[in-house]
Amino acid sequence: MSWLETSIMNTLGVGRGGKTVTHELTEAKQGKYHYTMGPYSDPVLHIKPGDRVIVETRDAFEGAIKTEQDMPTQKLKMPFLNPQNGPIMIEGAEKGDVVAVYIETMAPRGPNPRGTCAMIPEFGALTGTYYTATLNDPLPEVVRKINVDEQFVYWSERVTLPYKPHIGTLSCSPEIDSINSLTPDNHGGNMDLPDMGPGSITYLPVRSPGGRLFIGDAHACQGDGEVCGVAVEYPTVTTIRVDLIKGWNIEWPRLENEEVIMAIGSARPLEDAARIAYKELVLWMVKNYGFDKWDAYMMLSQCGKVRLGNFVDPKYTVGAAISKKYLALK
Amino acid sequence: MSWLETSIMNTLGVGRGGKTVTHELTEAKQGKYHYTMGPYSDPVLHIKPGDRVIVETRDAFEGAIKTEQDMPTQKLKMPFLNPQNGPIMIEGAEKGDVVAVYIETMAPRGPNPRGTCAMIPEFGALTGTYYTATLNDPLPEVVRKINVDEQFVYWSERVTLPYKPHIGTLSCSPEIDSINSLTPDNHGGNMDLPDMGPGSITYLPVRSPGGRLFIGDAHACQGDGEVCGVAVEYPTVTTIRVDLIKGWNIEWPRLENEEVIMAIGSARPLEDAARIAYKELVLWMVKNYGFDKWDAYMMLSQCGKVRLGNFVDPKYTVGAAISKKYLALK
Amino acid sequence: MSWLETSIMNTLGVGRGGKTVTHELTEAKQGKYHYTMGPYSDPVLHIKPGDRVIVETRDAFEGAIKTEQDMPTQKLKMPFLNPQNGPIMIEGAEKGDVVAVYIETMAPRGPNPRGTCAMIPEFGALTGTYYTATLNDPLPEVVRKINVDEQFVYWSERVTLPYKPHIGTLSCSPEIDSINSLTPDNHGGNMDLPDMGPGSITYLPVRSPGGRLFIGDAHACQGDGEVCGVAVEYPTVTTIRVDLIKGWNIEWPRLENEEVIMAIGSARPLEDAARIAYKELVLWMVKNYGFDKWDAYMMLSQCGKVRLGNFVDPKYTVGAAISKKYLALK
Amino acid sequence: MSWLETSIMNTLGVGRGGKTVTHELTEAKQGKYHYTMGPYSDPVLHIKPGDRVIVETRDAFEGAIKTEQDMPTQKLKMPFLNPQNGPIMIEGAEKGDVVAVYIETMAPRGPNPRGTCAMIPEFGALTGTYYTATLNDPLPEVVRKINVDEQFVYWSERVTLPYKPHIGTLSCSPEIDSINSLTPDNHGGNMDLPDMGPGSITYLPVRSPGGRLFIGDAHACQGDGEVCGVAVEYPTVTTIRVDLIKGWNIEWPRLENEEVIMAIGSARPLEDAARIAYKELVLWMVKNYGFDKWDAYMMLSQCGKVRLGNFVDPKYTVGAAISKKYLALK
Repeated sequence: MSWLETSIMNTLGVGRGGKTVTHELTEAKQGKYHYTMGPYSDPVLHIKPGDRVIVETRDAFEGAIKTEQDMPTQKLKMPFLNPQNGPIMIEGAEKGDVVAVYIETMAPRGPNPRGTCAMIPEFGALTGTYYTATLNDPLPEVVRKINVDEQFVYWSERVTLPYKPHIGTLSCSPEIDSINSLTPDNHGGNMDLPDMGPGSITYLPVRSPGGRLFIGDAHACQGDGEVCGVAVEYPTVTTIRVDLIKGWNIEWPRLENEEVIMAIGSARPLEDAARIAYKELVLWMVKNYGFDKWDAYMMLSQCGKVRLGNFVDPKYTVGAAISKKYLALK
Repeated sequence: MSWLETSIMNTLGVGRGGKTVTHELTEAKQGKYHYTMGPYSDPVLHIKPGDRVIVETRDAFEGAIKTEQDMPTQKLKMPFLNPQNGPIMIEGAEKGDVVAVYIETMAPRGPNPRGTCAMIPEFGALTGTYYTATLNDPLPEVVRKINVDEQFVYWSERVTLPYKPHIGTLSCSPEIDSINSLTPDNHGGNMDLPDMGPGSITYLPVRSPGGRLFIGDAHACQGDGEVCGVAVEYPTVTTIRVDLIKGWNIEWPRLENEEVIMAIGSARPLEDAARIAYKELVLWMVKNYGFDKWDAYMMLSQCGKVRLGNFVDPKYTVGAAISKKYLALK
Repeated sequence: MSWLETSIMNTLGVGRGGKTVTHELTEAKQGKYHYTMGPYSDPVLHIKPGDRVIVETRDAFEGAIKTEQDMPTQKLKMPFLNPQNGPIMIEGAEKGDVVAVYIETMAPRGPNPRGTCAMIPEFGALTGTYYTATLNDPLPEVVRKINVDEQFVYWSERVTLPYKPHIGTLSCSPEIDSINSLTPDNHGGNMDLPDMGPGSITYLPVRSPGGRLFIGDAHACQGDGEVCGVAVEYPTVTTIRVDLIKGWNIEWPRLENEEVIMAIGSARPLEDAARIAYKELVLWMVKNYGFDKWDAYMMLSQCGKVRLGNFVDPKYTVGAAISKKYLALK
Repeated sequence: MSWLETSIMNTLGVGRGGKTVTHELTEAKQGKYHYTMGPYSDPVLHIKPGDRVIVETRDAFEGAIKTEQDMPTQKLKMPFLNPQNGPIMIEGAEKGDVVAVYIETMAPRGPNPRGTCAMIPEFGALTGTYYTATLNDPLPEVVRKINVDEQFVYWSERVTLPYKPHIGTLSCSPEIDSINSLTPDNHGGNMDLPDMGPGSITYLPVRSPGGRLFIGDAHACQGDGEVCGVAVEYPTVTTIRVDLIKGWNIEWPRLENEEVIMAIGSARPLEDAARIAYKELVLWMVKNYGFDKWDAYMMLSQCGKVRLGNFVDPKYTVGAAISKKYLALK
């Protein structure tokens, strides 16, 4: 039996055991992509819990960087970056529920798929930025176009990296804010967590009717922290299955895969993101796994695992996880 | 051939291929343990590069917490915490060199070995602290005594954790500062990095004659971030092999094991620790592995790995690593 | 001659020397107050540069806390806090312009005016918060109702404070984001700067057609940092004069009064807010006052003045100022 | 009657009303200046509570930068910066006491006194630094020599600043650490608070026998935050009166002048320094001025004043103050 059978999604989802309808959210059907996630945009798709959606995502630069001579400062126009598919309306979703997003597959899109990496002035972790404001000259602009297939990312003559795709930006809508797609927060958003790939389920808090799911920003691979600010950004065909869990009132996104459960926090400074993630994990262990609060806190001090999502966006993202094997009752 | 044969230590160490003398640094020989790491204390041992030292470390509470009824506020006396063995003088070590510490083994010490975990008021990541000052009532004091053997940490009736020992505090002396053993910085110190266990080599910058090596703070296991502020603290017999690399002028500690090389930064806020670690890793790849600086920076954005040491000490520690397989020349 | 005559607003404003029409933005005319500042809400008023607006602001709790027995957790409903008047459309305002807001007067509103202060659980600087997440019990809820007149704030039997009103939240709309009124950023927003009172001019970057000015969150007085998270919140009649400066492309809000010019940054951690403020001030001195960049930077190290707006909101606010007397050419 | 008569120092000091002996701590008597503050150095002077000391301080560069052509990277040698006079032993001082330092006068020293300002690579608030590590090229090195007299600082042809001297670095010794003189913490140290000039009394926690007072780092003037990292550094004759308050157990330094009392915190990130300062001020108001804790907290939210000392050192310094007029009992 697959771990999926016993996942939270398949145990509590409204759509479990039902008929799975498959929808396509092509570029044409999407039409205009979105640069904010909020309650003010028009839905592009209505689905039922348990349905599958095949999404054509655009890369974070919306294809504007076609060659290594296309400089970001020439081709990109803030704040129109990181285009999102959606919003997808999930039938029955209301404030206080959770939308579950199981990523089935992610494939490079296009006849000769290439990813893009770039050094963008005053963006990234090892440079002065818009918020960490300095008077230093910016780093040089550099663009890399990288061949990608479903096995490898051909980084350079010297280095070939494994293809480990994930979704960088995923969220339901905030209740009243409309937040640009570069910023993560308690709705999800631009978390850049390498764990959010095929085989993972992300749980997103619902704060407006229908949930209003947004998805985009696929990465063919990414290191912890996304240190230069850009991963191997590429367009994909991404297949997700979406379910709805009623009455699960969570403050921050959570994630599950075969090995772990993970709570996710996004904030600055970075320690606040880590505090949020670990606090949410403690509360989760107490509420759903029967741990005493102080036992959970002290035990995570011995076996918690931390993933640094990004520390380059306007807010930074940290996931705190625990192996499922420590959650079982003896 | 073991990876050790090709390690930096065995390639560049003064003691490579020489005779290995084994020293014992017992409790008796150590005498008074140290609570600061600096240039003002008397050496307890003089060794040559390549020598082995068998060290009897004390736990971070120096054995003062014997039962679950021994409350930290009663038994501990700041700043006399985290006792360190040392200083050990390494023959020939001078400012601008590196001391390499290969951890061979770590075994629990005593007839019926137990580790200690505790919640200490205003200490830990999920509470107001001395520096993140709040007016909230402190969390309760809780003490856990945990049976430990060389296979398992018997956390609770419900949960048994694997024995994964590491050294929490390791450093040479700063040049002029004498820094309490709770604080990590560019000398090393209280880094609490789970990677610093048997099978790892830590490279420490030398800033005073003889290097003045300090070691202590063994953990039978520890999660990323050491979230409650305390790991499974226990006394050990720890066996290290110490070597000296002349003229390797590094600013921050580094680590090597079979899989990765890792640069280590300690600072607040946490993003500064991560910045230091990644910057040092970029510079290392450029200087010793022939990478172009911007290629290294962008590539780490795709394959860098981050370990959160602690985010509970007066400064926080992050390790940034890259797999050795990406360092090889084709 | 008043300093106003030589202010930037009166020197460069489109409305200078023209006829000043006075508008009233009463509660009735405002209708629904707003909890986000963005481009998606319906305008309540259209004015011309140079016009005056008399605004009836509500207090930050929208009057929901009427007695010292009204507990915030019972009476307040996140995120519907800090109600804003607006949006006010300024004729001719376009992206790349600046809206200038001169605050003429602020008077308490109502027959028996009282301000409100409160300790709100997990809000404020000396407690764990939503972002600085801890497991401590929250501080107690405490509510204070304080009599206010145009001379004094009658804090307690023991302490009477001077009436020093200011506007806590002021901004034009972001380009695509709609940001809750609790959060400051480069649009302005909830800056909580005590300098933003009668006799000050605030310069706000325009990012959408008409500027879309929002105003609210009046404080009868406030200390630096607004340490408990709440000032003396009260409803007012606030009279502003609004002008438009074409083609002044600023990234962050700025302020001017008789004594100083001030650049304002909002970010976390707090040092980033201070970095932004000082960098913007350096750039301002270079661009508009003829200073060499490094001379300005080094000179501010000798005579710059810093105001801490708040360090309790989702982002913190700092103003960096220089006395006008050091700007004059000899 | 001068405010001094009713100051805490003159009310509680052991030396009040006694005979004041005047000591001279000349360059010759000092001999070697110190670059760390700790318990391991030899005393240069023994005094009694109430005594006066006339100190010849050296500038922070120890005179090494003589002309505008003397580049910091050539002339300065880390960590041998910011030379301190001391340690001065105060008779009777023990752990748990406070040493009070009243600054009487500060005069420029030398026949043709000049101050020094400099931009030092990777030092200052608007540049990547050792801890906020970036890959950007450093800012240029710039040196300024500035004429100084007891009225003015002759910054440039265009700008003359008032002479407002203060002491940048002041502390008793930590208990076991020896901390470089660039770093402030709970012992005091390199706080760079403009309030610490003539007419102020600083209260320093005693943590080792005799207190071991260190003093240095005079500034002819300094802006809030010391943004470029360097003030107008100059050698002085500084006259202090030193007293001892027995059994006043404070965690962080405090300050008093005619107008205010101020608590001082030093930490990173900057909000932690502000948290410490405000928390200490709340506790002070409760313990010594009879305020209810929550009343003090909420009232400081209305009338607290914040001074940013520096945000350029390894730790940042904030003072939180309240006007003495609000402390009086009616």
